[in-house]
Amino acid sequence: MNLQPIKSENNPKFKNALRLHSSRGRKQQDRIIIFGLQEISRACQAGVTVLEVFVDENQAPPDCLATVEGAAFYQLPSSLFNKLAFGDRNDGVVVVAQRPESGLAALNLSPDALVVVLQGIEKPGNVGAVFRSADGAGADAVLLADPLTDAFHPNSIRASLGTVFSMPTVSADSRSLQEYLHQQRFQILAACLDTEQDYYSIDLKGRTALVLGNEKQGLSDDWRGSGILSFQLPMRGQVDSLNVSSTAAILVYEAMRQRHDGIDSSEKNDL
Amino acid sequence: MNLQPIKSENNPKFKNALRLHSSRGRKQQDRIIIFGLQEISRACQAGVTVLEVFVDENQAPPDCLATVEGAAFYQLPSSLFNKLAFGDRNDGVVVVAQRPESGLAALNLSPDALVVVLQGIEKPGNVGAVFRSADGAGADAVLLADPLTDAFHPNSIRASLGTVFSMPTVSADSRSLQEYLHQQRFQILAACLDTEQDYYSIDLKGRTALVLGNEKQGLSDDWRGSGILSFQLPMRGQVDSLNVSSTAAILVYEAMRQRHDGIDSSEKNDL
Repeated sequence: MNLQPIKSENNPKFKNALRLHSSRGRKQQDRIIIFGLQEISRACQAGVTVLEVFVDENQAPPDCLATVEGAAFYQLPSSLFNKLAFGDRNDGVVVVAQRPESGLAALNLSPDALVVVLQGIEKPGNVGAVFRSADGAGADAVLLADPLTDAFHPNSIRASLGTVFSMPTVSADSRSLQEYLHQQRFQILAACLDTEQDYYSIDLKGRTALVLGNEKQGLSDDWRGSGILSFQLPMRGQVDSLNVSSTAAILVYEAMRQRHDGIDSSEKNDL
Repeated sequence: MNLQPIKSENNPKFKNALRLHSSRGRKQQDRIIIFGLQEISRACQAGVTVLEVFVDENQAPPDCLATVEGAAFYQLPSSLFNKLAFGDRNDGVVVVAQRPESGLAALNLSPDALVVVLQGIEKPGNVGAVFRSADGAGADAVLLADPLTDAFHPNSIRASLGTVFSMPTVSADSRSLQEYLHQQRFQILAACLDTEQDYYSIDLKGRTALVLGNEKQGLSDDWRGSGILSFQLPMRGQVDSLNVSSTAAILVYEAMRQRHDGIDSSEKNDL
């Protein structure tokens, strides 16, 4: 790799990369910034287009980058590199990539696809944790409805362990997502506090969308009405809800259990 | 309530309270500090002994504190109060309380008690999130083995929504906890990566201890051997584990499901 030196923080490549720390910067440039070797490596495996690679001149460039084609490589003194790096995540390399493009039309879901829909989630750490659990349970996509954060926020990438790159994902408004799910004949299940239908008494084996709402307000009214089944997580203690990432983990693993444990609970489902 | 004014940051009450932000300070004084009205209110309900109440002189003292007996009340200018408050959690009141005492001998568990054992967990946010899920599923205790953090760390209290005060908890070394669990005839189930026993194929209805290890290293060898059944969470994607709080949520809710769904899976259990 041909390493071009960057000596000043006024270097435009450096300045543009720095702006990708913010959601606004990512939107303006339609690019993302990736920290952490594991995350970078998952992004590369998933076919994300790496545009620029920044390496600390005091650390050896990691081997996995030798296979990156078509990217520009820059070498920085540690004083500059550390400004670009994020928190304690300093593997000596930071990557700028094209924001992975995704639209509903590009989703290609299996007949028994399991998708998680997150509506109005605020905290990137929660979004990332849901991707990680969805990956673990073998879910097929994570869709973001009316998102208040960004799947490619550094904290989301981090909490997802890089699965935001491999898991199909689309951001859209609630109405478009719902229309899509209905068209695609998904069973739509919405997490609520005011129903008595327990999640585990629903058959989760067919095409299923599990819809979870904002950390504080829960789901908006867009996700009530005909064609949508409300369900609850029983709460047997003092609190009236779990963290959204815990809720998602419980639900995708219950779907996984039903799909692999050979239990036939279809007669329980009265949607 | 009789509000005594504090005018200087050299006031010893103020200085001691400030020291409770750190784990070391909490240990030295055998006291904890609680932020947030909801958390304070849960602590009071759970019978935690409040020793000192600090209120911002520019905010009305909250009603719930009228019932606190035997505590000293202090009023501070906002400039001092904000130093005592933690991050954005400023409800105008901060409380210093006795560290809730707990020992194994004081645990009084039902014949089908469900307990979570966290071994060597580092992040207080994870500890707190496990308390919240354990509360939700109706678990009976959360035990901390060889803890690297503290259930009463401000971030743990926060993530638990105050359930660290209502949920029975004991911290001890792995050996003592294991001895206790054996004596009390618990089925001990240890989360591992190198077994083929899926968690949902185990009968979780009797006295059960679910043991989860450190965020990076997993469980130590102390939790292998005779009388301990290893199990796994199936991982069907790219990552090889979930966040410890997601894992705990899945497990306690699977136990809850088995206990309330009337499924008899006892013949599956080959411990």
